[in-house]
Amino acid sequence: MTATIEQVQARRPDFEGDFLIDEVVPLESGEVLARPTQHYAIYGKLNAARDNAVLVCHALSGNAEVATWWPQLFKKPGGLLDLDRDCVIGINILGSCYGSTGPGSVDPETGRPYGPTFPLINVRDIVRAQEKLISSLGIRKLKLAIGASIGGMQVLEWAVLFPDRVARAVSIGAAPLGAMGLGLNHLQRQAIMLDPKWAGGYYLPDDEPHGGLAVARALGIISYKSVPLFEARFARNPNRTGENPFISAVAGQNGRFDIAGYLDYQGRKFNERFDANAYICITRSMDTFDPVRAHASPYAAYSRIQAHVTLVGISTDWLFPPEDVRSLAAIIGAAGARCEYREMASIHGHDAFLAEPDHLVRLLHPIFE
Amino acid sequence: MTATIEQVQARRPDFEGDFLIDEVVPLESGEVLARPTQHYAIYGKLNAARDNAVLVCHALSGNAEVATWWPQLFKKPGGLLDLDRDCVIGINILGSCYGSTGPGSVDPETGRPYGPTFPLINVRDIVRAQEKLISSLGIRKLKLAIGASIGGMQVLEWAVLFPDRVARAVSIGAAPLGAMGLGLNHLQRQAIMLDPKWAGGYYLPDDEPHGGLAVARALGIISYKSVPLFEARFARNPNRTGENPFISAVAGQNGRFDIAGYLDYQGRKFNERFDANAYICITRSMDTFDPVRAHASPYAAYSRIQAHVTLVGISTDWLFPPEDVRSLAAIIGAAGARCEYREMASIHGHDAFLAEPDHLVRLLHPIFE
Repeated sequence: MTATIEQVQARRPDFEGDFLIDEVVPLESGEVLARPTQHYAIYGKLNAARDNAVLVCHALSGNAEVATWWPQLFKKPGGLLDLDRDCVIGINILGSCYGSTGPGSVDPETGRPYGPTFPLINVRDIVRAQEKLISSLGIRKLKLAIGASIGGMQVLEWAVLFPDRVARAVSIGAAPLGAMGLGLNHLQRQAIMLDPKWAGGYYLPDDEPHGGLAVARALGIISYKSVPLFEARFARNPNRTGENPFISAVAGQNGRFDIAGYLDYQGRKFNERFDANAYICITRSMDTFDPVRAHASPYAAYSRIQAHVTLVGISTDWLFPPEDVRSLAAIIGAAGARCEYREMASIHGHDAFLAEPDHLVRLLHPIFE
Repeated sequence: MTATIEQVQARRPDFEGDFLIDEVVPLESGEVLARPTQHYAIYGKLNAARDNAVLVCHALSGNAEVATWWPQLFKKPGGLLDLDRDCVIGINILGSCYGSTGPGSVDPETGRPYGPTFPLINVRDIVRAQEKLISSLGIRKLKLAIGASIGGMQVLEWAVLFPDRVARAVSIGAAPLGAMGLGLNHLQRQAIMLDPKWAGGYYLPDDEPHGGLAVARALGIISYKSVPLFEARFARNPNRTGENPFISAVAGQNGRFDIAGYLDYQGRKFNERFDANAYICITRSMDTFDPVRAHASPYAAYSRIQAHVTLVGISTDWLFPPEDVRSLAAIIGAAGARCEYREMASIHGHDAFLAEPDHLVRLLHPIFE
């Protein structure tokens, strides 16, 4: 049996639903979140022993429908996941705008959308909420938790927080963000807030700060890609629409180079599918990821891990430099956990996990043999 | 005789003035600039032969007063320049806001400030205007032209455009911008234009788009620094003012990490000394720098060079990667010009020329022996 990427991408989840945590959930920030909902999707079937569950954790702009954004993982033959064998679960993270409770949701206390009053969601909060959902499905132990970027952060947090609930953990392009990444995320939020439509975060659904979110996304794209990739793709070419960068134009709005046209396009396109408050919320979740926080030491945190952990660094990733991922693997290993480091040689920067998924699958494949 | 850095910095130019080009100057863009003025500063004295002139070309936010921003070059002993021997000239570039004609100047055709209608200024336009000023001083040949960043671009353009007018040319951290640099500059301009006070570039002097310019500057700073520098300085430290990044804050305005506080501070500070339209103008000058443009080939352009050229790359510069500078040196050399490449090993990124000037002087010093 083979399945093309297009078939996989078009595949609807076998189950899709919303899971309500019917309580007031305490958060790492000291605040609470009342009765949050998580939207989730299931592909394939849980077996009788319920030991074939794979949790795929999505990145910033992803969602629960794993097969739509990471179809290559399901390719047959040669993919990582096999829906005749595995039950794949995707959960939209808290703070997002793809079905789970986020800034666009109604605050039960006020009856109005949270907007900018939505609390800071730590990756640990996201994972604690996921654990409740996984438990509700009767799953005692995940066969695998896998994810990249903030998805990889969730995987690491799973391995530390719930040591006996994960057999294998694969975290790609993830580590606590360094100063450069923190700076880039900060400026993305600042760009959103520059937009006159930002309105302190109380913008209306039909009058969103699209200009600011577009610049934020474009800067995000810059942080996800690499110098050599941009050079190979865009170099110093004028924008492919035929603009001329060498003539005057009021305020530089025209006369763009190709890279500028590309970044503007990516920003505009993002507005169709994302919300500014959610963007701010999730980038802060990324910023504050630190699996050691509130543990006595790195050793105390990482020695908890029982899963077999694989960390993947990407050679040209400058948002999560491979050195950072490699040294995190060494620290986890030094704490006594089984942790291996693999490096993906790619020109694509942080985005390699989406841009070269076949390469990633090949790199990971021996893990499952 | 020795001079401390403080003494050099406080040193007023021996002459400071404005040079008017009393004609309508044609520009590379096809447009014109009527009767532009260049503000310039002279340190030391021209000798009788007028062969001791050194032109120091400033970077984006610099100005004609070289001794204030690059004092280490004048240090005695050990500096590069000696005011008992050299006559050092600084010229504020067209498009800037430090005395030369720029977007804040009055358009003689309308009697109002140019604002966003100020034409695109190519580095070649800047250098042609500088040549007129240098000629007016009776200087036939510059002993040395030196500069970094867009200053280094000017130096290269001098060597190509006026081959018999420059004996030595030292260009630091400069090459035609790659796609990543073009993208970063573009987003800086987009950030300025997001600011509601931008007003299409027709903002009033007392109501400038400070928010947008601050974000632009902060993004510029990111492009001038390096991952290892930020990591060494800021890591994941909370902002030194005592903010806590791990608690909720409406729209992330508070609870910053140290790097975010630093970037915000740098942005705010920049508003005291720069103008948004000038920033847009000069970044476009950077973008459009290409000394080969309108020549038949790289060979045709670079084989014109008669100066002894030194290009300096900075090891951690990702705005002007050292590979780009090195390969430019190879291309210039292959065209038959005397061109050597030196690399400055520094953690400081592009900014190393300002952050480690003593190091730079040591690297260059043998040139003048």
